[in-house]
Amino acid sequence: MKNYIRQDTPLAKFIKTKLPIIQAPMAGGATTPELVAAVSNAGGLGSFAAGYLQPQDIRVAIKKIRNLTDKPFSVNLFVSEEHYATQSQIENMQNVIKNICPELNLQSLQNNPVLQLPSFDEQIKVILDEKVPVFSFTFGIPSQEYIAQLKNNHTILVGTATNIEEAQLLEKAGIDIIVAQGSEAGGHRGTFIVCDENSLIGLMALIPQIVDHVNIPVIAAGGIMNIRGILAALALGASGVQMGTAFLTCHESGVHLKYKDTLLNTKADNTVLTKVFSGKLARGIKNAFIERMQTHNNEVLDYPIQNSLTVEMRKIAALNNNTEFMALWAGQAAYLCESLSASELIKKLSFSLDSYVT
Amino acid sequence: MKNYIRQDTPLAKFIKTKLPIIQAPMAGGATTPELVAAVSNAGGLGSFAAGYLQPQDIRVAIKKIRNLTDKPFSVNLFVSEEHYATQSQIENMQNVIKNICPELNLQSLQNNPVLQLPSFDEQIKVILDEKVPVFSFTFGIPSQEYIAQLKNNHTILVGTATNIEEAQLLEKAGIDIIVAQGSEAGGHRGTFIVCDENSLIGLMALIPQIVDHVNIPVIAAGGIMNIRGILAALALGASGVQMGTAFLTCHESGVHLKYKDTLLNTKADNTVLTKVFSGKLARGIKNAFIERMQTHNNEVLDYPIQNSLTVEMRKIAALNNNTEFMALWAGQAAYLCESLSASELIKKLSFSLDSYVT
Repeated sequence: MKNYIRQDTPLAKFIKTKLPIIQAPMAGGATTPELVAAVSNAGGLGSFAAGYLQPQDIRVAIKKIRNLTDKPFSVNLFVSEEHYATQSQIENMQNVIKNICPELNLQSLQNNPVLQLPSFDEQIKVILDEKVPVFSFTFGIPSQEYIAQLKNNHTILVGTATNIEEAQLLEKAGIDIIVAQGSEAGGHRGTFIVCDENSLIGLMALIPQIVDHVNIPVIAAGGIMNIRGILAALALGASGVQMGTAFLTCHESGVHLKYKDTLLNTKADNTVLTKVFSGKLARGIKNAFIERMQTHNNEVLDYPIQNSLTVEMRKIAALNNNTEFMALWAGQAAYLCESLSASELIKKLSFSLDSYVT
Repeated sequence: MKNYIRQDTPLAKFIKTKLPIIQAPMAGGATTPELVAAVSNAGGLGSFAAGYLQPQDIRVAIKKIRNLTDKPFSVNLFVSEEHYATQSQIENMQNVIKNICPELNLQSLQNNPVLQLPSFDEQIKVILDEKVPVFSFTFGIPSQEYIAQLKNNHTILVGTATNIEEAQLLEKAGIDIIVAQGSEAGGHRGTFIVCDENSLIGLMALIPQIVDHVNIPVIAAGGIMNIRGILAALALGASGVQMGTAFLTCHESGVHLKYKDTLLNTKADNTVLTKVFSGKLARGIKNAFIERMQTHNNEVLDYPIQNSLTVEMRKIAALNNNTEFMALWAGQAAYLCESLSASELIKKLSFSLDSYVT
């Protein structure tokens, strides 16, 4: 087994963690500073998802993480993308959302939601100022100027690829580590150069493909929940794993308690890929919003406009403990979720892994 | 590593092969008696795909296989399914096909193609008469009466599942071994109780799910091309693997030489899931027929009616060496295909596997 692990590109050399395990950045409140620090303290790499946050909030979170750990950690941002919608398309989608969940009484929704994400340029300024140990990004590649500045800070750069072409672009841009996201993964697809259909490659086929085509470490992401998945990923040629769903039900995770309950009560894969929450393809547990939106799939707007339009519905659903209108992002092996502290989870995962880390 | 393999359900106990490797049954001419026998002689389990064949042709093939090997081998059939189309729907699809590939000059296509598959009842009679060592089936579960007769013959039964529910139904029906087909797999989806969307589970998530829910051996299928994939599948809890695409480019494989060339020249995953060739969802390399049929997706008829309607087009395309109108079934790791004899391929795969087989 050991012979099949790429000894030439040990993950630890870059990120200086005890274990080849990254806790995935999961936007929307899951990755609290407490979760990130607990993972890093336990020997993994905690990741703080800052994509939806204002610069000042990112700065506060980084300080909190640093108060809780002196180990390396990662911060994740979304690379900005083109998006467009007419005012009438926006009004149409607002009406669709108001009418689709009468049980939430959304008639009083504000008519002018903020349609933009916080400025990427201002967000990344915080990453640079704070000299974070690891910076990961999704949905594209930052400019060469930012990459040079980050490297100057000795920040390790982690990008996400869903196919060979994206992986090669990341390597060419000077990125240090690639997260290979399989079709099993929960949450948003990291695809940034081709469309959905061709980007849904399962990990069993994706890891060898990417490992064979780049010379930097590859981290496997998607459906990995326990030691079996970690050993399988290493056998396929990955240098480590990134796990998201398994951390959602940790005590330190910031997701809604009903969302945790749903994950803990999952008996089999009941996820689907959908654009209805954000405008971008993502995997989550099927619920009433996804089902009722099926007749409106053609009206769904670009990311992040669609995301902004569903924010208030999701907030009110959360206040009402109604999981039918929350985004229940989850991977295809969510049925293996357990209620543990992050350190307990990492301890379970680290069993027999020591010998793989050099 | 070895601890993670289910020692309680060794594959060899059932199928009495040296290696935990099944060559997948691939209908359409790939699995010649020569290929099946070569795999079995080399220590794997060769599988003959008989789903589209007349009973007398199945009998001839079994005799050929037996002339070439005294080792166990498998024969595969398709369990019959409901299907329906009106005469006008059939005529419409005939016209669509005639017009969609002007380069093939199909105007003289016969107007009354045979729309049915050979009778399953007559096909399985040959399996029973010939007392084949292993019988595998797809798209459903044979009746309890057939299962009892097959067991009476000491025939080992292998069924395909794409989710937990299907696996549990197979176990309950008394099937001996389950092939867990991941979303990575080439060719037809084996799904038989739920629709597409929920059945596309990647192997990294699917194997543990099925292994955790049944007490019979589970074989991993989909995107496995070499020793890395085999070790990964075993780590995930599988008792063995089923590999299809890797055998398509073997010297003994019966597929068209241009199809082999296409596979051998694949550089990255370029497969899609499509119903246009057969009426049933299957994964293959994207070509002109799939692309041009996109505007006719709603007119595609039930399997096997659609399959019958495209037979002649595919035959003429093959005669013209035109891969744009052939069904180029392939899994998501087809880029790892090599031109080898089956025994050379098995020899490469068996490296270091001996210790896993009890």
